[in-house]
Amino acid sequence: MNKALRIAHILRNTSAFQGKDVVVQGWVRTRRDSKAGISFLEVNDGSCLTNLQVVLERDRPNLAALVERLTTGSSVEVRGTLTPSPGKRQSVELLARDILLYGWTDPARYPLQKKRHSFEFLRTIAHLRPRTNTLGAVARIRNRLSYALHTFFQEEGFFYVHTPIITTSDCEGAGDVFRVTTLNPTELEHANDESLYAQDFFHKPTFLTVSGQLQAEIYALALGKVYTFGPTFRAENSNTSRHLAEFWMVEPEMAFADLDDDLALAQRCLQYVVSDLLEHSWDDLQFFARFVEPGLLESLKAVKEQPFEVISYTEAVNLLKKSKEPFNFPAEWGSDLQSEHERYLTEKAFRRPVAVINFPRDLKPFYMRVNDDGKTVAAMDVLVPRVGEIIGGSQREERRDMLLEQMNRKGISLESYAWYLELREYGSAPHCGFGLGLERFVQFVTGLGNIREVIPFPRTPGHADF
Amino acid sequence: MNKALRIAHILRNTSAFQGKDVVVQGWVRTRRDSKAGISFLEVNDGSCLTNLQVVLERDRPNLAALVERLTTGSSVEVRGTLTPSPGKRQSVELLARDILLYGWTDPARYPLQKKRHSFEFLRTIAHLRPRTNTLGAVARIRNRLSYALHTFFQEEGFFYVHTPIITTSDCEGAGDVFRVTTLNPTELEHANDESLYAQDFFHKPTFLTVSGQLQAEIYALALGKVYTFGPTFRAENSNTSRHLAEFWMVEPEMAFADLDDDLALAQRCLQYVVSDLLEHSWDDLQFFARFVEPGLLESLKAVKEQPFEVISYTEAVNLLKKSKEPFNFPAEWGSDLQSEHERYLTEKAFRRPVAVINFPRDLKPFYMRVNDDGKTVAAMDVLVPRVGEIIGGSQREERRDMLLEQMNRKGISLESYAWYLELREYGSAPHCGFGLGLERFVQFVTGLGNIREVIPFPRTPGHADF
Repeated sequence: MNKALRIAHILRNTSAFQGKDVVVQGWVRTRRDSKAGISFLEVNDGSCLTNLQVVLERDRPNLAALVERLTTGSSVEVRGTLTPSPGKRQSVELLARDILLYGWTDPARYPLQKKRHSFEFLRTIAHLRPRTNTLGAVARIRNRLSYALHTFFQEEGFFYVHTPIITTSDCEGAGDVFRVTTLNPTELEHANDESLYAQDFFHKPTFLTVSGQLQAEIYALALGKVYTFGPTFRAENSNTSRHLAEFWMVEPEMAFADLDDDLALAQRCLQYVVSDLLEHSWDDLQFFARFVEPGLLESLKAVKEQPFEVISYTEAVNLLKKSKEPFNFPAEWGSDLQSEHERYLTEKAFRRPVAVINFPRDLKPFYMRVNDDGKTVAAMDVLVPRVGEIIGGSQREERRDMLLEQMNRKGISLESYAWYLELREYGSAPHCGFGLGLERFVQFVTGLGNIREVIPFPRTPGHADF
Repeated sequence: MNKALRIAHILRNTSAFQGKDVVVQGWVRTRRDSKAGISFLEVNDGSCLTNLQVVLERDRPNLAALVERLTTGSSVEVRGTLTPSPGKRQSVELLARDILLYGWTDPARYPLQKKRHSFEFLRTIAHLRPRTNTLGAVARIRNRLSYALHTFFQEEGFFYVHTPIITTSDCEGAGDVFRVTTLNPTELEHANDESLYAQDFFHKPTFLTVSGQLQAEIYALALGKVYTFGPTFRAENSNTSRHLAEFWMVEPEMAFADLDDDLALAQRCLQYVVSDLLEHSWDDLQFFARFVEPGLLESLKAVKEQPFEVISYTEAVNLLKKSKEPFNFPAEWGSDLQSEHERYLTEKAFRRPVAVINFPRDLKPFYMRVNDDGKTVAAMDVLVPRVGEIIGGSQREERRDMLLEQMNRKGISLESYAWYLELREYGSAPHCGFGLGLERFVQFVTGLGNIREVIPFPRTPGHADF
């Protein structure tokens, strides 16, 4: 029964379909009944933002009764002829000959009305929100962005590797991880001690991964160039518009490469994906430029055309100190850059993506390569306007002695990471990589301020519905 | 520093690079020193199965001492001239001018020796096993297969949707799920009751997803055609060569489509991906045909060329009953098809992929569409030789009344799935989809019998290392 043309396909090829018989299947967005016995339906099938206008003559046999039931949200199949439209808002319309109502929607109960709903409300009906213009456009852009990322890395010769989700290690040495267990906490009878794990599925404490990097390093040191693309987790109890408990990351890792190669890869990646979106998601991007972020298209074109501004952390701190900006947190060498600092650098100082490199050693995780100054590591944070950090990466410490020193200094268990140390013992090589947050990227290209709007089913403290 | 050519690229374009200066970076697989003062290195960079032969003249200044250290597993950069090889095993070789040793490997300690290791042993060194021919080839095939799946669905107009990993629901109504929690079981002081969840991250019990299907249905009923590609989890305590606790699934879902459309999509999908692999992963497939599964290439070509054999479950049971095969479990209408039955159908009865459709209602989950006979549901299992079920799918029950009946019959909570019922209230439409197990697919195209060998870091009872 799946014989319909997609509306996106029809609208991209209107001259080919004009005067032709076509079938579309989709959902009624609105219906307008004119006095002249004509009804107009706006039908959307999700393939694109634009609705197809369907024209119905109500006086045709059996049609008058049916038309009454073509309510907002109802699903229909329409057969008819595609013709030029006399209307101003569309170039073509579908003169309906047959119409089939699959699923009627009771207008008195349907939560999506013909008005603007708040994002907060839409989140409570996450099973219906992709039927709105905004969330539908987000879904299509997220799809295209994901595929462009895959295509970029494939064309660059990277192999896609599935690093584990359930892990016994905790990449950053940070505390906020989710536990994975088959023990039922409400049925534990006694003995709240380590012996419990004998009954657990993996016989030891296991967690949801916070990053696939360390395992990606394994594959980079065998296949040369690899990337991950998968979900990652943080059990951080913070209810902000910037944090999710579950989000998606892309983490390339390449052998025989240093921080310069890493920077070059990140730049090619951003430029490739943004170019791809400007070509393939133009209508959806325009929608966001019109209703969400007025300067959106310009800022995307700038990313496509301009190289990153690369400055060291030390230079960045000096620049922030010299600026006259009234920061809430004054910039200080040795402290993390705050969101306000990142935005100043990329939105005011340089007005383009900025890569800050060579951060103080004590600010960054144990696996980053220590620079010759002994004080900084070969790290990079790529900042973009509005969003701030979109990519974080580094050259990895490939020298076993120095890695040991870093691990001891930061209290990392040598036993748990014995295999990671062995990578430095058997055919070690300079290597580097980065993590790109998919949701941050979608925020950047849509202008949406709240990260909960750019993932289908956001997981935040107290929220795991649907 | 990442200026090397990939060996795969050189070998695909030998005529372009002959006589040219090239740089390669990779790992020494073997070294052979001839008496004539020449040493031969086999260098592999992971880009392909084939090593590049590097020819070294030991009498050149400083080289003799270095050559001694070019041990198996060491990482090197070689500069030299690509020339035709007089040897029989390769068409070109690299006459080395400069060689740089990045990471020496102590041959007395390196676990990968120049011999065949058992898969069991290799699993204990999962951080080194991708450096072997077999696991390297698996990784490249898994990569290509994943990308071909993405490309197939993108070309068919499906949108990639990220369904949630952490969920409060359990798609199949089955019991074997992992719990996700921030509660530390060894620190629970008392009160092993439901009040515990007040302190848990999501304030209620949450689990790792067993399928993204139900959420994919949400997006299919908004965007028309979608697919998931992500990890799924089963806490089944079974130590078999067919089960993993963590595995990857691809789940397309499409609106305005029935079981026939589902079958057609599954067939196009299998054929597309197998054709793609035969074109792009030929060398790696040949390796598996040579060392693992002799009839591999023929069985892949058959999939590419032959349509599925489609038979109903009832026909399949009759056929099994009439066969003279000595099954351990006799086939009986109303019972699940056993692995031995599946293999008989696909390997002996039809010798091609077989789609079994219309299973007894009581064997399948609540969401499958009840057929007009009231006894069966519009399900399909696609079976392939050696592996058995590689795809399982169905038309979904789009009629709210019938879905309610199914849920009540199977004891599914109406409250937990209120949103799922609402999809049948607001613009419901016939729809269908399937799940394709990525690991099963990799097993099918490599011939590997144990599922633990086709995923980088297998998770099974008691095992979550690396």
